[in-house]
Amino acid sequence: MLKLEKARVVIVGLGLMGGSLAAALKERKVCREVWGVARRPETIDEAFRRGFIDQGGLDLADAVAEANIVILATPVRTILELIPRLGALAPPGCLVMDIGSTKGAIVRAMTTLPSHVQCLGGHPMCGKEVSGLGAAEATLYQDHVFILTPLRRTSESASAVAQKLVRGVGARPLILSPERHDRLVAAVSHLPHLLASTLVMTAKELNEGDDLVWEVAASGFRDSSRIATSDVQMRLDILLTNQEAVLQALQRVQAQLQHIADLLESGDEEGLREILESAREQRLGMFCARRTSPAVV
Amino acid sequence: MLKLEKARVVIVGLGLMGGSLAAALKERKVCREVWGVARRPETIDEAFRRGFIDQGGLDLADAVAEANIVILATPVRTILELIPRLGALAPPGCLVMDIGSTKGAIVRAMTTLPSHVQCLGGHPMCGKEVSGLGAAEATLYQDHVFILTPLRRTSESASAVAQKLVRGVGARPLILSPERHDRLVAAVSHLPHLLASTLVMTAKELNEGDDLVWEVAASGFRDSSRIATSDVQMRLDILLTNQEAVLQALQRVQAQLQHIADLLESGDEEGLREILESAREQRLGMFCARRTSPAVV
Repeated sequence: MLKLEKARVVIVGLGLMGGSLAAALKERKVCREVWGVARRPETIDEAFRRGFIDQGGLDLADAVAEANIVILATPVRTILELIPRLGALAPPGCLVMDIGSTKGAIVRAMTTLPSHVQCLGGHPMCGKEVSGLGAAEATLYQDHVFILTPLRRTSESASAVAQKLVRGVGARPLILSPERHDRLVAAVSHLPHLLASTLVMTAKELNEGDDLVWEVAASGFRDSSRIATSDVQMRLDILLTNQEAVLQALQRVQAQLQHIADLLESGDEEGLREILESAREQRLGMFCARRTSPAVV
Repeated sequence: MLKLEKARVVIVGLGLMGGSLAAALKERKVCREVWGVARRPETIDEAFRRGFIDQGGLDLADAVAEANIVILATPVRTILELIPRLGALAPPGCLVMDIGSTKGAIVRAMTTLPSHVQCLGGHPMCGKEVSGLGAAEATLYQDHVFILTPLRRTSESASAVAQKLVRGVGARPLILSPERHDRLVAAVSHLPHLLASTLVMTAKELNEGDDLVWEVAASGFRDSSRIATSDVQMRLDILLTNQEAVLQALQRVQAQLQHIADLLESGDEEGLREILESAREQRLGMFCARRTSPAVV
């Protein structure tokens, strides 16, 4: 039976998320050993230097062969390429999980893993708009929701180990189906990212040639557009593996914007007031009195 | 000739913006006296208690009769109602200005003021998502751009006094035409406000009945939606006095979102990458190496 405190955890991909996870596992002594796999030797060197890993290298097969737990921490489509390879590499009893930002496609890929391997999906609801190991820190996961999406084949004990690992890095596990996960994050993560980029592009287009547009932008614009600087490859992987839910979210946003434009054009003050008040009330209730722990839903 | 250091400045409206302006004028000893006019006696009491004003009251006529400078700091449509009344109240040589968030309608209203009154529009590019005197602070204007929109009739010396006042509270004056102001702020202020509200409403609609949507929302959603909590009356006044520029901005956003949806639907990764990269580059260049002072353009 896999015990987290005796486990060797291999993290594949030492960017912001994987690097921070390694750092948290090490600093909080959650498992026996943390190994890292990266594409570039400099990344491994830096992870060693910062004390984030016990062992590290460029070879996936070497590391996975000796793993108790493998955590895939690359962009989503790289995770989708890695999963079939892991089937032949992971030793019996090994737990394979990931921290990719969409879950449907990944969990579908996991169903093809051999039965001697345990697996489930994961997605920590935290991050930064800067990427790379340089931005990694052990506190990144602290107090954030960490969604887990078990498969029908996932054993109770494998799910329990994953939840323990999540709590070990200071996060709160929340168990969801991949479909529900993808629908929820399309609305609260993928959509705001697209709106941030759209805002920047629109402000530029509307004022082509007028550089003052950036001079007069205040804190409202700054905060609304912050996530437009997030890693592009990561976001492309997300969009292209959550196409349907994102398209649906875009459709609803457009309908809502058209509704607002219609109200404004006809000078319907009460109609506009209703929308602004309703959004204001909803937003005021958020990010203040968070439920202490949603535990497992 | 009006001298700022000898002036009695009357601020009409002691909310977040007017209250902070009074506080900054007092604390930095920019003028001789600061008077406040508000609708509620409790507001005047609080402004006194916090040392933001030398005199205060509920009567506009009484205060304006003895003013050297009147600054209208109410929502935009209240400013539009006040301007015609000031014509009969303001003493000769008095400078009337405002800090409303749109400028076209206000500057048009100012053209009707009698010729013995000086006037120009103003709009500080700062604020908070909370409103009211309770949130006011003397540092609010510090290091922010403060747009001034003089009229053709505005004298050089009146414009110079206004710029001195702006610098006096720690802000950087930027002189623009009302039309250019309204076009720029539609893109960088009014549009992001509408997008923030739309994001909250869409996330709610897409997940009707699924309360977990707010549980999984992370810092990206938090920052993107922050300004959805801004004062609704202030925003209605803004939208309804900058209708044309806001409608144009909404139209461009919708075209951009449709373009993104089309690219996503057809799986056009390179097309999506181009937009995300371009927005990322543009946003990375902002809010870091600000020009030290745009001075007067």
